[in-house]
Amino acid sequence: MTAFAPDPYDRDCPTRQLLDRIGDQWTVLIVGTLGDGPLRFTEIGKRVAGISQKMLTQTLRALVRDGILERRMYPEIPPRVEYELTDLGRDLAEPLGVLTEWATQHMDRVARAREEYDRAASGR
Amino acid sequence: MTAFAPDPYDRDCPTRQLLDRIGDQWTVLIVGTLGDGPLRFTEIGKRVAGISQKMLTQTLRALVRDGILERRMYPEIPPRVEYELTDLGRDLAEPLGVLTEWATQHMDRVARAREEYDRAASGR
Repeated sequence: MTAFAPDPYDRDCPTRQLLDRIGDQWTVLIVGTLGDGPLRFTEIGKRVAGISQKMLTQTLRALVRDGILERRMYPEIPPRVEYELTDLGRDLAEPLGVLTEWATQHMDRVARAREEYDRAASGR
Repeated sequence: MTAFAPDPYDRDCPTRQLLDRIGDQWTVLIVGTLGDGPLRFTEIGKRVAGISQKMLTQTLRALVRDGILERRMYPEIPPRVEYELTDLGRDLAEPLGVLTEWATQHMDRVARAREEYDRAASGR
């Protein structure tokens, strides 16, 4: 076990990279959609519309490595592979859900701010 | 005003891009450090160790445009420019603080998961 005082403001602290991983839009959407229960690779790809195969593969692998997702293989024919949240992943789903909620609820306000900014900028 | 049902799972919905912006590590760290009060450009750069001048400039501009930060110029000699959270920014600071807290508290567990994953992978 490593003993350290984690500080994301320290450029060398691994929490900074973890923060980058968990705040990533693909992580937020994948963890969010797995909150409903385990899903197959292709099902996740359909729900998280617009993610490339490569990005989906990479993100899933990173999340499994981080202990946020579990990859389960069922020895059926053809073999079925599913991804599901671990306990740690379920714990993360809550703050990420709040973030998604925030974006959804405040989009209008942000859009208005952008319009004002662009109008002011074009009048300079 | 735009009337729409925001859905970050829709690839064409602007909430997806907003989610990407607010989950960005630089946004999280900048909004977090401005929670203590307004700061100058150079002070923010010092606190968010490792951010490049270019990235700091770009992120601050985007956050001002999004209505999350306000840029205040004080007509002193030399002129003083400070950035501070708007009401919207203060509202965002809370969920982002929870995210930072999560990364800080769970770093040990994620590090252990990675060690196990890498050990299992090397034994394959």
